[in-house]
Amino acid sequence: MDVPGGIYVKITCKQQDLSRGLATVGHAVSSRSTLPILVNILLETDQGRLKLSATNLEIRIHCWIEAEVQETGSTTVPAKLITDFVNSLPQAPVEINVAEETNSINIKSVRSSATIKGMDPSEFPLNPITESEANPVILDAGLLKTMINEVAFAAADDDSRPVFTSVHIEIGNEKLTFAAADSFRLAVRTAALPGNEQEGGSFLVPARTLIELGRILPAEGTVQMIITPNVKQVLFRTERIDLIAQLMEGTFPNFRQIIPKEHSTRAVVETKEFAAAVKSVTPFARDSSNITRLKVTSGDEEGGEPNALTIEATAEDVGNNVSTINAAVDGPEQQIIFNVKYLADVLSVIGTPEVALELTSDARPGVIRPVGPADYTYVIMPMSTNR
Amino acid sequence: MDVPGGIYVKITCKQQDLSRGLATVGHAVSSRSTLPILVNILLETDQGRLKLSATNLEIRIHCWIEAEVQETGSTTVPAKLITDFVNSLPQAPVEINVAEETNSINIKSVRSSATIKGMDPSEFPLNPITESEANPVILDAGLLKTMINEVAFAAADDDSRPVFTSVHIEIGNEKLTFAAADSFRLAVRTAALPGNEQEGGSFLVPARTLIELGRILPAEGTVQMIITPNVKQVLFRTERIDLIAQLMEGTFPNFRQIIPKEHSTRAVVETKEFAAAVKSVTPFARDSSNITRLKVTSGDEEGGEPNALTIEATAEDVGNNVSTINAAVDGPEQQIIFNVKYLADVLSVIGTPEVALELTSDARPGVIRPVGPADYTYVIMPMSTNR
Repeated sequence: MDVPGGIYVKITCKQQDLSRGLATVGHAVSSRSTLPILVNILLETDQGRLKLSATNLEIRIHCWIEAEVQETGSTTVPAKLITDFVNSLPQAPVEINVAEETNSINIKSVRSSATIKGMDPSEFPLNPITESEANPVILDAGLLKTMINEVAFAAADDDSRPVFTSVHIEIGNEKLTFAAADSFRLAVRTAALPGNEQEGGSFLVPARTLIELGRILPAEGTVQMIITPNVKQVLFRTERIDLIAQLMEGTFPNFRQIIPKEHSTRAVVETKEFAAAVKSVTPFARDSSNITRLKVTSGDEEGGEPNALTIEATAEDVGNNVSTINAAVDGPEQQIIFNVKYLADVLSVIGTPEVALELTSDARPGVIRPVGPADYTYVIMPMSTNR
Repeated sequence: MDVPGGIYVKITCKQQDLSRGLATVGHAVSSRSTLPILVNILLETDQGRLKLSATNLEIRIHCWIEAEVQETGSTTVPAKLITDFVNSLPQAPVEINVAEETNSINIKSVRSSATIKGMDPSEFPLNPITESEANPVILDAGLLKTMINEVAFAAADDDSRPVFTSVHIEIGNEKLTFAAADSFRLAVRTAALPGNEQEGGSFLVPARTLIELGRILPAEGTVQMIITPNVKQVLFRTERIDLIAQLMEGTFPNFRQIIPKEHSTRAVVETKEFAAAVKSVTPFARDSSNITRLKVTSGDEEGGEPNALTIEATAEDVGNNVSTINAAVDGPEQQIIFNVKYLADVLSVIGTPEVALELTSDARPGVIRPVGPADYTYVIMPMSTNR
């Protein structure tokens, strides 16, 4: 089962490393494309390592894995076939040979030998990366994952206003800010960038790109974020992974204007209880535009109703549900209507035991914040049943 | 949030029990039906317990759960809504009230109270169960699950020959036999029925019904199988669950004729290795009608090729894969072509460490058996590449 013709790549690596690398670059493989080679993964030797690359022209991922390189070279093969095959192999060394001229790859494991036909690697569309002259921003990988998780979901799904499909990233004053919004909500997360004296400015990264980045980032270590404004490109670089994406053009709205400066009523509740109550009303809200009524009840000294947050949804033909949870309330009673999905989304990413709900009136945006850290703000526009 | 009007059901039960019961009967709920009430679950008090029922007219499931019954009665409510709601509740007692006349149900948990509109339970289509005069066949629930798992997958998916969508069940001579086949394979499993002196005979149960039964059966305890031939009905009964299904009419082919009586070559291999090798060739077989070539190599005394089983698949435009695993071979070299899916299916259900492959020629059916127990036989028809 040897590859016919001369061999021009010959390397050995671990099945686990190859499997992980293929999964990583797999996030950038086109599911289908007018350019057939984009369903392939590019494999090449690179300074004593094996470099895997994939791109769907929107994002591009490189991943390096440890390998023993005896002969250097490159080829491209269908992503799905090589990934399925490598995943089926036992955890043991894997020998990879590529045939000269045909681009066919041969992969040998303990009991198995497969040959996969390839395509000319010179046809693989990889524009050169323009390295920025600016210093990279150095981030903790775990923190970056958290920031993506807390913000990117709030971006819009549809392209009707493209700027809302992106995350606004701002660097300045030793601070990094992520913000995303659709027409009904806004999520803002900040993190300290000690020692970062750059002006930096702001730029827009597609939310989908950041979500893929969040999936492939290691839990530990550092990430370099390198922005090259003149080619509208951002590069996220870890020890083994590069993700390159195009920046989005456009102007993000002045989101700080949207965040209410004050509130009349503040209710602090347990995050888990709030999330469970929201989950309970969801089946009932489903059939009525996700309408969910929140009511903050402020107990009086006479000992009437206790301090509580009530969450209610009614499905006209089906039934209704009311959940009441304990709350520490500051301010007068308030009622407001929110889309239950926007509540469920934010409650699934807030990691603190307690969360605060800040309200002013039933026509003004509400704010949800973790209790403790002051680095996260989530604004929800109220729904009106009069519309 | 109390139900308007008089209360005529009032019970208390555990959230966990109710959630499990709803999941169990959920297997028989119609996803959509011309009869709207079939998307509902029937809840009724029954001798100090709560009885849940659902039917899609093909199968019908009843499940009893422990409850404290204060007032008796019944109602029906949408399965999805009550299941989603109950699953969102904390593990704590749940109080259920049903309103007189409206059939509305009110479910109260620690912090949550929901009202769900119902439909008249008298409209729920439940034909009376005709209890057979014959003694029930008593089976171990775990054994029945295993038998279903080892046989039902071999039945046909499509209805072109309805009898092949069922599992043939045979009782007699203190033995229970399950058999299922499509046009290309046959799975047969037997189990001892000590003390069962009945004639019994044979009947056909839709494979889909048995697969659902396998999913809801407890891992332990006993199951009564009660066949009522005159109404073409089978009832599987455990302590808490009844599943009732219609028997299928028709005559199952004489499957014993299909099982080869002898073989020329027998290869014994490790089940896990065989399964891994089949998984490795699958991506390559996918694009060529699942064609997979098996070759049993018998080592000679001169010390040439070792005893081995080779599994090979070639995707014309894509590549190929050869896997070779150690085998204890008895008999001359043999080659045969199987559909890779039929190999993968059986290797995922055989629980013994070793499995035997018995071949006669490339045109005669092959047999796969676990090594050890003599209670399972799987026959695969060879494919021909000349077709």
